[in-house]
Amino acid sequence: MTGKFYGIGVGPGDPGLITLKAQAILSRVDLLCVPKSSVKKDSLALSVVQAVTDREHQLLELDFPMSKERQILEQSWRHAGQQVAAKLNAGQDVAFITIGDPSLYSTFGYLLRFLKADCPQATVEIVPGVSSITACPAALQEPLVEGEEKLAVIPAAYSLEDLKSVIEGFDTVVLMKVNRRLPELMHFLKQYDNLRTFFVSRCGYPDQLATSEPERLLEEKLHYMSLLIVKKNKPAGDNDK
Amino acid sequence: MTGKFYGIGVGPGDPGLITLKAQAILSRVDLLCVPKSSVKKDSLALSVVQAVTDREHQLLELDFPMSKERQILEQSWRHAGQQVAAKLNAGQDVAFITIGDPSLYSTFGYLLRFLKADCPQATVEIVPGVSSITACPAALQEPLVEGEEKLAVIPAAYSLEDLKSVIEGFDTVVLMKVNRRLPELMHFLKQYDNLRTFFVSRCGYPDQLATSEPERLLEEKLHYMSLLIVKKNKPAGDNDK
Repeated sequence: MTGKFYGIGVGPGDPGLITLKAQAILSRVDLLCVPKSSVKKDSLALSVVQAVTDREHQLLELDFPMSKERQILEQSWRHAGQQVAAKLNAGQDVAFITIGDPSLYSTFGYLLRFLKADCPQATVEIVPGVSSITACPAALQEPLVEGEEKLAVIPAAYSLEDLKSVIEGFDTVVLMKVNRRLPELMHFLKQYDNLRTFFVSRCGYPDQLATSEPERLLEEKLHYMSLLIVKKNKPAGDNDK
Repeated sequence: MTGKFYGIGVGPGDPGLITLKAQAILSRVDLLCVPKSSVKKDSLALSVVQAVTDREHQLLELDFPMSKERQILEQSWRHAGQQVAAKLNAGQDVAFITIGDPSLYSTFGYLLRFLKADCPQATVEIVPGVSSITACPAALQEPLVEGEEKLAVIPAAYSLEDLKSVIEGFDTVVLMKVNRRLPELMHFLKQYDNLRTFFVSRCGYPDQLATSEPERLLEEKLHYMSLLIVKKNKPAGDNDK
């Protein structure tokens, strides 16, 4: 019997925000795979797993280099897919764990594509997790979108020109991993007088930072697990609608 | 002692996708509040709660009329806020439950604003939940966004003109509650030859529908808990990147 491959979102970091289903699967699967390159991230996902299960897991470390070269990346994903396929073919279940959710900016998607090419008979189950995109507004007690509002989510690398049109067309914009760009972004956003901005880093951890005054943080060294929420003020009197 | 007010996302509907924290809070809070008007939705959130706790909850039904008139809505939110405030002031903890996540298109935000005005001393905790926005791609085994891709989330009421510019500017667009508009949308999307579309309804329920061929559903009566994912094809050969 071929084993089953799980892609599991463990939530934003607070062990309380893992789902019952993720906990149940992680309590019975022996073999966890984690990307080796992003050491910080791994140990975060692993620490959540260790907080909610008693099982001693074996680890399969997958080598995803930080390269931007297409060929190097493909080779590493293919190799990772083969490593997972070998375990599945030997009858072992394997769980790939990721902070947040496996469908949102996770390495899981790449791995899955190569695995499916290599091991088409594998059964796959993806368990969605709570994303920082909603955990941060919960920490701020500030709704992300309501009614007919539109939401945009933008990753770290984008031009300010690009950001301009997004800000103009959307009610709420979430900018992921803004730590290094915060001063530049806050300066850029000064041109608008109809925006409110919120910054959250390390959401759900003891050192969580959540503020509606990101301009106070411009001198600080910020953690990469961070996002900026930009909300457009509604027309006068409309904020209660 | 004033009671504590919780806003709790119970996830997209599968009881396995509730978080440990939500389950723990709902196991100790006696009083749940649910919006009366959206009867279907309530019973969904309630059925998740009943599946994961043994407690017999009291219910505080809040009357949110389906009106579009500002004054009627404000009156109902204010009244709901007062009802919750009365319970908190009497020392009871109260949990507002919502399918999905309380920060994404939930009535919770309105209620919270009015409650805070009425009962500024209340302690509030928001527990984020898994949203259908990531549960649906998990069911499809199709990543939502990867690498430097941009995501837009658009609610039911929008013009096709508006949609056009969003589709052109984003890698992935999630259209919420598309059930009634599916034929119109699929017709509109025909003009693009670089898109893939996915439809999911009732994600995580026994009657879940998840397909990469929404054009086959144009004659069907579809559930309102539905969304359409529109993904732009990457440049040739780039789909494995």
